[in-house]
Amino acid sequence: MRQFAMSIVLLSLLSNISWGQESNDFRPAETNVWGAEYPRVDGAGRVQIRVKAPEATKVKLNFWSGPKVDMEKQSDGFWTVTTTPLVPGLHYYTLIIDGAEVADTNSHAFFGGSKYASAVEVPEPGSTYYSIQDVPHGQVREVWYNSKVTGTWRHALVYLPPNYDAETKVRYPVLYLQHGGGEDETGWIRQGRANFILDNLVAAGSCKPMIIVMAYGYGRRAGQVPPDLTGKPFGSPEMLKAMQDMASAFEDDVTQALIPYIDSTFRTLPDRDHRGMAGLSMGGMQTFQITLNHLDLFSYIGGFSGAGGMLVLGDRKLDPKTDYNGVFADPAGFAKKVHLLWLGVGTVEPERMRAGIKRLHDSLDEAKIQHVFYESPGTDHEWQTWRRDLKDFAPRLF
Amino acid sequence: MRQFAMSIVLLSLLSNISWGQESNDFRPAETNVWGAEYPRVDGAGRVQIRVKAPEATKVKLNFWSGPKVDMEKQSDGFWTVTTTPLVPGLHYYTLIIDGAEVADTNSHAFFGGSKYASAVEVPEPGSTYYSIQDVPHGQVREVWYNSKVTGTWRHALVYLPPNYDAETKVRYPVLYLQHGGGEDETGWIRQGRANFILDNLVAAGSCKPMIIVMAYGYGRRAGQVPPDLTGKPFGSPEMLKAMQDMASAFEDDVTQALIPYIDSTFRTLPDRDHRGMAGLSMGGMQTFQITLNHLDLFSYIGGFSGAGGMLVLGDRKLDPKTDYNGVFADPAGFAKKVHLLWLGVGTVEPERMRAGIKRLHDSLDEAKIQHVFYESPGTDHEWQTWRRDLKDFAPRLF
Repeated sequence: MRQFAMSIVLLSLLSNISWGQESNDFRPAETNVWGAEYPRVDGAGRVQIRVKAPEATKVKLNFWSGPKVDMEKQSDGFWTVTTTPLVPGLHYYTLIIDGAEVADTNSHAFFGGSKYASAVEVPEPGSTYYSIQDVPHGQVREVWYNSKVTGTWRHALVYLPPNYDAETKVRYPVLYLQHGGGEDETGWIRQGRANFILDNLVAAGSCKPMIIVMAYGYGRRAGQVPPDLTGKPFGSPEMLKAMQDMASAFEDDVTQALIPYIDSTFRTLPDRDHRGMAGLSMGGMQTFQITLNHLDLFSYIGGFSGAGGMLVLGDRKLDPKTDYNGVFADPAGFAKKVHLLWLGVGTVEPERMRAGIKRLHDSLDEAKIQHVFYESPGTDHEWQTWRRDLKDFAPRLF
Repeated sequence: MRQFAMSIVLLSLLSNISWGQESNDFRPAETNVWGAEYPRVDGAGRVQIRVKAPEATKVKLNFWSGPKVDMEKQSDGFWTVTTTPLVPGLHYYTLIIDGAEVADTNSHAFFGGSKYASAVEVPEPGSTYYSIQDVPHGQVREVWYNSKVTGTWRHALVYLPPNYDAETKVRYPVLYLQHGGGEDETGWIRQGRANFILDNLVAAGSCKPMIIVMAYGYGRRAGQVPPDLTGKPFGSPEMLKAMQDMASAFEDDVTQALIPYIDSTFRTLPDRDHRGMAGLSMGGMQTFQITLNHLDLFSYIGGFSGAGGMLVLGDRKLDPKTDYNGVFADPAGFAKKVHLLWLGVGTVEPERMRAGIKRLHDSLDEAKIQHVFYESPGTDHEWQTWRRDLKDFAPRLF
């Protein structure tokens, strides 16, 4: 409920709308498939969803950072609902039809929650930084690389800046940019619109042209048997072990397979001064692990709503002398090595997330470690936070 | 039912399996999302589907080129079913949960039927031509082009052959390759695996390296109001008019916006002798319309399970003197101009589809128009047919 309540407050301040009033400006969301009339969004950010389920006895709308709302059955077999206003940005949702959690076939499919979910884009008035503009565009490429670490072909997306093909002598810095838990390598393009954010920043002269590599953040070492986590609760030792195994396999995949592949395939500047990594949520934790274990490879570090704190630190403060192999023990040495350490979180994210990141921020301040701490106003653990993060982060790179 | 019956016959011949027997070699399908145990496929091509819908009263499995099968409710709230054997290849399906047609969250999402549907890949024993192999790989790129015809930014996928980046002096021929009705520009990669088919053909020396452009085959002219087809039956004059308007807008988009964009963006051989077009189903009809109206632009033509016959000819034979602006009136002139005219259809496609394409084939024979006619054994109006089509078609190009 908090996000919904917060949205109403924010939007009241912004647009002075009286909430009891019916508005007639509902339009199909831009996240819809071609021709789908629903979901629809109005100027206040209210969303109308409609689904055909003539024989169902109960249908719920399930916005992931909001409540589950009961939908109402109409006489024509459709179920409908109108939400309270949502904050601008992309909102994941699913439908729960007689207990089955499914995607809405009216929406484009977005991989999140380890499945193809639906989403509705609520426009942010006046915002153009994450939409396509008439500026030179980079290209997103699909690549497959053969990883000896996992023993599999792995799929990644690579954004190349505008004019990469024409400027055949120019080499570019590289940002490795990771999705969150339950998402995949497509998240930063489909949900995050990282390509348009970069195109627009580069066109405005606000950021250097760069290559962005988006990898698939899961993996298992070649030959490793999948763990049987049946009956093991979230946070159990078995589950933590499985997560650490995966994190370690991914670390080796990035450093031993992906980076060499990228550097041999694209015109990169293949040194630590021109290589950064950032990620959101789980991707932020992976970023901290991978970059701080490999400062020989990376010099720019970003944690978006997930900065490694939880897995490594739990609920305690950072000990700069010992944590993360002691990289924070010498602030001057760290500042010389790491050109940017960046943390961000939304102001209405769940309290535990905010507290963990703020505690890390405070610990870094106490340890006199230079870093940037950014708070996205009024946004939750959601893509609008991470779009803003990238918009703040990218201009500070390289 | 026909495809299921046919599958059983074919697979009986191929593998001598006794159908009453339980087999224990069910494995997660390669079309599943990571970690999903279902759908599962066995060596005979039988598919097991499982979905959680604890409060549903009826759940059906809906394979698009097969019957709707009732699923059985288990005591744990899951519904399950095991199908009879399916022919190898990719099979679209949806679930119908208490009247709501939805995708299975265990499957990757494939855009078909104007929505994100599910699919299960049934392996073809011994077939490697459409899977990733340890050969040089091309790259699939996402591009956006600004179309004055539609007044919108349009998204297309472009396959560039292996070594495109390294061979900076080489220019390549271009195949425009279109999806079917209800699908989109991603179909030939996600469902068809055109990239792997081309990688493997090129590696074997069976086909020339080429660029493949996959466009979004729908559109509306800038400023045109969407037609209101409410209550108009399929095949009504209003619907035919809407289809013709869309076909004509797409024709102009391809010839006036897309081709100039591709030729100015990539190292193409930008002449008719090095440009072909093919498509499946609706895409085949579009191919016939666009290429035969623009023989100044194209010299290779492929119709995969849809060759323009239906829209232009209805149920009658081709009149070579008048149909298609009379391009077939002079066989020798046509053969000089058009280096390849290729038609294909699966042997178990719906009778009307087969009859239409065979009638066109016979008419072309009678009119002494050189062409290739290919039949895919045992496959329906489905992706396995079109993968085979591309495998036969591409080596004949350029």
